[in-house]
Amino acid sequence: MSKGLPKRSEDYSLWYNELVKKADLAENSPVRGCMVIKPYGFSIWEKMQAEIDRMFKETGHTNAYFPLFIPKSYLSKEADHVEGFAKECAVVTHYRLKNDPDGQGVVVDPDAQLEEELIVRPTSETVIWNTYKNWIQSYRDLPILVNQWANVVRWEMRTRLFLRTAEFLWQEGHTAHATKQEAIDESIQMMNVYAQFAEEFMAVPVVKGVKTESERFAGALETYCIEALMQDGKALQAGTSHFLGQNFAKAFDVKFTSKEGKQDFVWGTSWGVSTRLMGALIMAHSDDQGLVLPPKLAPIQVVIVPIYKGEEQLNAIRDKVNELIKPLKAAGITVKLDDRDTYKPGFKFAEWELKGVPVRFAIGPKDMENNSVEIARRDTGVKETFSLDGDLLTKVQELLNDIQDNIYKQAFDFRAENTRTADTYEDFKSILENQGGFVSAHWDGTAETEEKIKEETKATIRCIPIDAKDEEGTCIFSGKPSQRRVLFAKAY
Amino acid sequence: MSKGLPKRSEDYSLWYNELVKKADLAENSPVRGCMVIKPYGFSIWEKMQAEIDRMFKETGHTNAYFPLFIPKSYLSKEADHVEGFAKECAVVTHYRLKNDPDGQGVVVDPDAQLEEELIVRPTSETVIWNTYKNWIQSYRDLPILVNQWANVVRWEMRTRLFLRTAEFLWQEGHTAHATKQEAIDESIQMMNVYAQFAEEFMAVPVVKGVKTESERFAGALETYCIEALMQDGKALQAGTSHFLGQNFAKAFDVKFTSKEGKQDFVWGTSWGVSTRLMGALIMAHSDDQGLVLPPKLAPIQVVIVPIYKGEEQLNAIRDKVNELIKPLKAAGITVKLDDRDTYKPGFKFAEWELKGVPVRFAIGPKDMENNSVEIARRDTGVKETFSLDGDLLTKVQELLNDIQDNIYKQAFDFRAENTRTADTYEDFKSILENQGGFVSAHWDGTAETEEKIKEETKATIRCIPIDAKDEEGTCIFSGKPSQRRVLFAKAY
Repeated sequence: MSKGLPKRSEDYSLWYNELVKKADLAENSPVRGCMVIKPYGFSIWEKMQAEIDRMFKETGHTNAYFPLFIPKSYLSKEADHVEGFAKECAVVTHYRLKNDPDGQGVVVDPDAQLEEELIVRPTSETVIWNTYKNWIQSYRDLPILVNQWANVVRWEMRTRLFLRTAEFLWQEGHTAHATKQEAIDESIQMMNVYAQFAEEFMAVPVVKGVKTESERFAGALETYCIEALMQDGKALQAGTSHFLGQNFAKAFDVKFTSKEGKQDFVWGTSWGVSTRLMGALIMAHSDDQGLVLPPKLAPIQVVIVPIYKGEEQLNAIRDKVNELIKPLKAAGITVKLDDRDTYKPGFKFAEWELKGVPVRFAIGPKDMENNSVEIARRDTGVKETFSLDGDLLTKVQELLNDIQDNIYKQAFDFRAENTRTADTYEDFKSILENQGGFVSAHWDGTAETEEKIKEETKATIRCIPIDAKDEEGTCIFSGKPSQRRVLFAKAY
Repeated sequence: MSKGLPKRSEDYSLWYNELVKKADLAENSPVRGCMVIKPYGFSIWEKMQAEIDRMFKETGHTNAYFPLFIPKSYLSKEADHVEGFAKECAVVTHYRLKNDPDGQGVVVDPDAQLEEELIVRPTSETVIWNTYKNWIQSYRDLPILVNQWANVVRWEMRTRLFLRTAEFLWQEGHTAHATKQEAIDESIQMMNVYAQFAEEFMAVPVVKGVKTESERFAGALETYCIEALMQDGKALQAGTSHFLGQNFAKAFDVKFTSKEGKQDFVWGTSWGVSTRLMGALIMAHSDDQGLVLPPKLAPIQVVIVPIYKGEEQLNAIRDKVNELIKPLKAAGITVKLDDRDTYKPGFKFAEWELKGVPVRFAIGPKDMENNSVEIARRDTGVKETFSLDGDLLTKVQELLNDIQDNIYKQAFDFRAENTRTADTYEDFKSILENQGGFVSAHWDGTAETEEKIKEETKATIRCIPIDAKDEEGTCIFSGKPSQRRVLFAKAY
């Protein structure tokens, strides 16, 4: 197949867009800002969902489902929240169409106007806390540890597949607690769950940290986050977990009676990751030949391409392969034999490379004679001939583990090379302009400085890393004293 | 706990509503017609989803995701479809709110009106066939066997939890084929998948059949369905599978080049089941004490209630139980020890009975002495003392299988007793009025007769059963000749 992928070094942004489309991950739909997630892309998302959902359940959470629509007035109940979310959203004003009296097609029926407009949820804190009011009376009803997998809509003007779309898929956890400390612990726990998922499954190293006040979730007292670095030196926020304090409990009057018989407002958290993770996954590992998938999330882990002339050779190979893959399948490895007779091997090699399958077998007449198979790994491109007298299952398991480790290491090394410290504003600007990546620098802690740096350099404070050490210094911009470094970058 | 469930014999409808709420399955939300699916209810839905999804994948289907919104003009492209779906739907007309200049809160920004209104999908044929146009050029691109799990919105005026809600969750399969026969085979296959799921997992016997023209899906040439009978004698359509012919291919100009080089329109199917299945599950088996869940879909299969005085006894029981349940858990049985010290055993018994847990253990001091456990089954209420010298795992496995079989048999017998033949209109009306259930009767095949019978009796033709035998007869209403009996019932 002709890939026609641009090179990353020439046009990273175009490379990403083309890769997403050509690898059959997603495409733009005729509905502005909304994407179609294609079967191959969705099967990766399903694997992500399965692991994340398992981790949620292991930490005591259960799933539920809340309405798609939010009454307009709910958004106004939490003052910061409405500023952050009420503006760019899809508004339902009518509930009926009718035949166009003046022509063909249908028009909105003016008689079917809603008394109060409904907003398609941009996030569900309001409708969920309105519900929790009825679920919570006593400390015995707490904690509530609920998550939902859902679609949400934020009316984005400039969209990019997976990274920023008007409609996207996500999970949103919403928990309610009797004490402040328990809620803080929960929000930190979920940041850690996200970090573990990103590193162990996506093979993407992340920085855990807290957001500055200006980057905080609208309605939160603290936003914890994980930040990843992409190959073009831009950062990507991969997940956030918010300590909401009692803000939503106060907005929706959610109180409980403590063991001691006292009434108090409930403490809350919310946390989410979205199909944006697909963007992070694609950009962290892929190359000019196409997608590179971590084995733990690859829908197909091993693809087998037969090389043959005629039906007879193909049948012989097919029989051999069916024997070979039995132990692999029994061990839970996903194997696909690509025996389509409508495409040639070279086309298939290119296609599976583009789609990021970690391990490829090729078997031809010579391999049949020699009882061998050619094994190629996607991450390094290295090929070897493997004798089938050996233990193929162990070989493949080792290879998959090695690929998972190797791409994590590559991403980790890339991030290490692209995390720099700057002690002057000149250095800071020069790094951002010429090299990109994370810049660790002192900041005076004011929103004003943060805003000015953003205006002048387009870099934002990605986070104050959890493991940032106390270090006396002076703000690169204002020269005022600072207690620790924060992490700047240009970001997606 | 005080259940306060009404009796089915007194007010079946109220019993259903109260059961759904008290068993923590779902509740109404402040958004008209939209429900909140609570964690316990959602965990049952998740088990349903997992089995159905597995069955889809085993029959070659993959998941994908298409936009929530549909441009208004798309709905008009298939003539029958717009009649069926365009009328009662949620219409997005604006994409922004702004602060109310005259007061508090937010108002719709009149400057942010969409050029073309967007409809929140009531079903996705239009947006999906518009996408398939770009996916299909040649016979090599076929078949496409895609499903999506999604939320949809149909503006219902009279809603009931799970049975009829404005927003509901469902799956919608949309397939594209090169030949008519392949598409028909696919739609029949999916009806069979639904029937197998209903009978094997939900323990609900269903009649497979085809809908009459007036009950057909808007845009289909044939609608296959499964119909179940509820305990109040009303029928419930539990799943439908549509042979779409080339209707949507023609509406969206989706053509392919055959092996022979000829151009033709693509053949389509669509098929879906929804959270309505939850309603069917609840109504098919439950009793005046609460929910009765089939073991294969029960989130908790065995609940253990300790009976104790003081921490010491509880700890002893807890140790014993933790040993006991190891082999059960290893065998994949879901077990919950209810060791809450805030509730008494009687309360717990009632709560788990209400929530339909198939098997309950009770262990008290006497059981500890005698090395025994009291085992109660939810379906029959029968209790027995089981000596732990015996094989508990085998006992529980047999019990779960037996409960699954027994509730299926009960539902099957109930349906057999409540399926009657009528050969005169008098008999027909009398059965419907006094007994309910399915009525098998001759019909002259006209929409006119169907409509009149519906007007006069509220009964509709649920389906023409797949296994209906050829039988000469005369229509109960018109006296005109008929070739086979069809199945009537009042329906949800």
